[in-house]
Amino acid sequence: MRCFVTGAAGFIGSNLVDRLLAAGHEVVGYDNFSTGQRSFLEGAGRSAGFTLVEGDLLNPDVLRPAVAGCDIVFHLAANADVRFGTHHPFKDIEQNLIATFNVLEAMRAHGIKKIAFSSTGSVYGEAAVIPTPEDAPFPIQTSLYGNSKVAAEGLISSYCEGFGFQGFIFRFVSILGERYTHGHVFDFYNKLRNDPSSLEVLGNGKQRKSYLYVQDCIDAILIAVERADAKINIFNLGQNEYCEVNQSIGWICDRLGVSPKLSYTGGERGWIGDNPLIFLDCSRIRALGWTPKLSIRDGVVNTLEYLMANPWVLDARG
Amino acid sequence: MRCFVTGAAGFIGSNLVDRLLAAGHEVVGYDNFSTGQRSFLEGAGRSAGFTLVEGDLLNPDVLRPAVAGCDIVFHLAANADVRFGTHHPFKDIEQNLIATFNVLEAMRAHGIKKIAFSSTGSVYGEAAVIPTPEDAPFPIQTSLYGNSKVAAEGLISSYCEGFGFQGFIFRFVSILGERYTHGHVFDFYNKLRNDPSSLEVLGNGKQRKSYLYVQDCIDAILIAVERADAKINIFNLGQNEYCEVNQSIGWICDRLGVSPKLSYTGGERGWIGDNPLIFLDCSRIRALGWTPKLSIRDGVVNTLEYLMANPWVLDARG
Repeated sequence: MRCFVTGAAGFIGSNLVDRLLAAGHEVVGYDNFSTGQRSFLEGAGRSAGFTLVEGDLLNPDVLRPAVAGCDIVFHLAANADVRFGTHHPFKDIEQNLIATFNVLEAMRAHGIKKIAFSSTGSVYGEAAVIPTPEDAPFPIQTSLYGNSKVAAEGLISSYCEGFGFQGFIFRFVSILGERYTHGHVFDFYNKLRNDPSSLEVLGNGKQRKSYLYVQDCIDAILIAVERADAKINIFNLGQNEYCEVNQSIGWICDRLGVSPKLSYTGGERGWIGDNPLIFLDCSRIRALGWTPKLSIRDGVVNTLEYLMANPWVLDARG
Repeated sequence: MRCFVTGAAGFIGSNLVDRLLAAGHEVVGYDNFSTGQRSFLEGAGRSAGFTLVEGDLLNPDVLRPAVAGCDIVFHLAANADVRFGTHHPFKDIEQNLIATFNVLEAMRAHGIKKIAFSSTGSVYGEAAVIPTPEDAPFPIQTSLYGNSKVAAEGLISSYCEGFGFQGFIFRFVSILGERYTHGHVFDFYNKLRNDPSSLEVLGNGKQRKSYLYVQDCIDAILIAVERADAKINIFNLGQNEYCEVNQSIGWICDRLGVSPKLSYTGGERGWIGDNPLIFLDCSRIRALGWTPKLSIRDGVVNTLEYLMANPWVLDARG
């Protein structure tokens, strides 16, 4: 199978590229390196089955020829900056919705009809039902990020309906693991590296989060693409458990052997639009035979150890 | 109150302008006249309280100063061409989503925080629950049009969450009445005017529709804006009854005194992405004291009589 991966130099993208190559597939990786890291593709670059195309999804002239001849598109590129959405309100529309539109049009130009898409549990807003199933009550959007993903999902399903595409849509909880470049563990380790004696926590530390390990996430994507056969296949991807931010801080401090004085900015939310709990009902993907292999705790500790072994990742972000 | 109305020269927009002026409000009407009709604003033009700004919502340089000083925005302008969405897949994104973004940004620039928005029952896709309530199961989008309205709704609610806006979102069934310029009654009358002996019907004629009369629709909008006080207020607007396309054809033929031979293109849908039934649970808006005054039959006949008295409307569409 010849696979096109957008966001190929990103956290999840580069891990997916490696897995697809290891499974014997050909891979065309596409990235504009705005946040992607060249070193994440070092292994892939040594494989004869890998081609890298450097380009922006907002540039159809580069995108369109790059997609030619592929059998499936894994569309992972996105603006994943949920927190600062209100600082640049058009960014999510451009990078998440219009970019997805360009991907779909490039596929349509070449008769490619299969697309897997990384959406988010943020599409449920402040979910009325927890754990939240895929057919939860029609949510009210609370963030520009979540809304841009809802819009991209709907664009994909409209292409399934109108142009005979087949779509695989994955609504993720937060993902962590090797090559993870933003989020809680990243921020906490970064702060503690600079000052192990104190740690400022956004919100009240009681925000509950359900982290999934990146290889478990990729297992689920590959299983779904292989086994699900509807026109539009929507799957939540997460754990059956959750932790509080405070627990995660405990695991991190234990592993680092530090005991910082904690201070809290207060409130149930880390920031405006932050969701106090994204906890998904994942029975639909589990029914296909998928189970996560790593617990939240092991995922957090693995991620921390990766960052400890690769401090350049922290420096690359500034 | 100084009201800004986008799509002011359109079917619903121009009726709303007249109602707002009659209630003693000042109105700034905004339209690019791509489908709007100047004659729909003839009455408004004679009112001292009315100002017309000719401009496109995709041009912030015209839009932004026009909004200044208004207390509320009624954002009705849209690409309402559901049927041919797949012929120009970017049109809905541009005219329904990016236009809404520009409206919100213009409001933000002037500190205007109240927005009423015309969404659609199409956001429910092929609804799993009928009659469909506002918190129906998270729908899968089936049309580029419906999806662009979902995205615009979510943009508005994100602005409510992130920027302190207050939003009133109305999910309409099909609306008809004076100044109606597209849809079933229009198409059937137009065909019968040219050839009263035969009539081609898209689909099997059994598609069920729940039409609402335009003045009843405007009543609901004005009642909601006056009485609803949540941050984000979402209302279905429709009838408690529905009709089959075939019934509507019967009323039209009776009124015209014609007996055409009917032929059907077949299938449950008039076109790809058409919805065999949009039938909304409107108890939420009814709880605010609203009731539609005209039945579906009376709405259809009123509309037909308007078109018979104003044949230029049919000719204006070509």
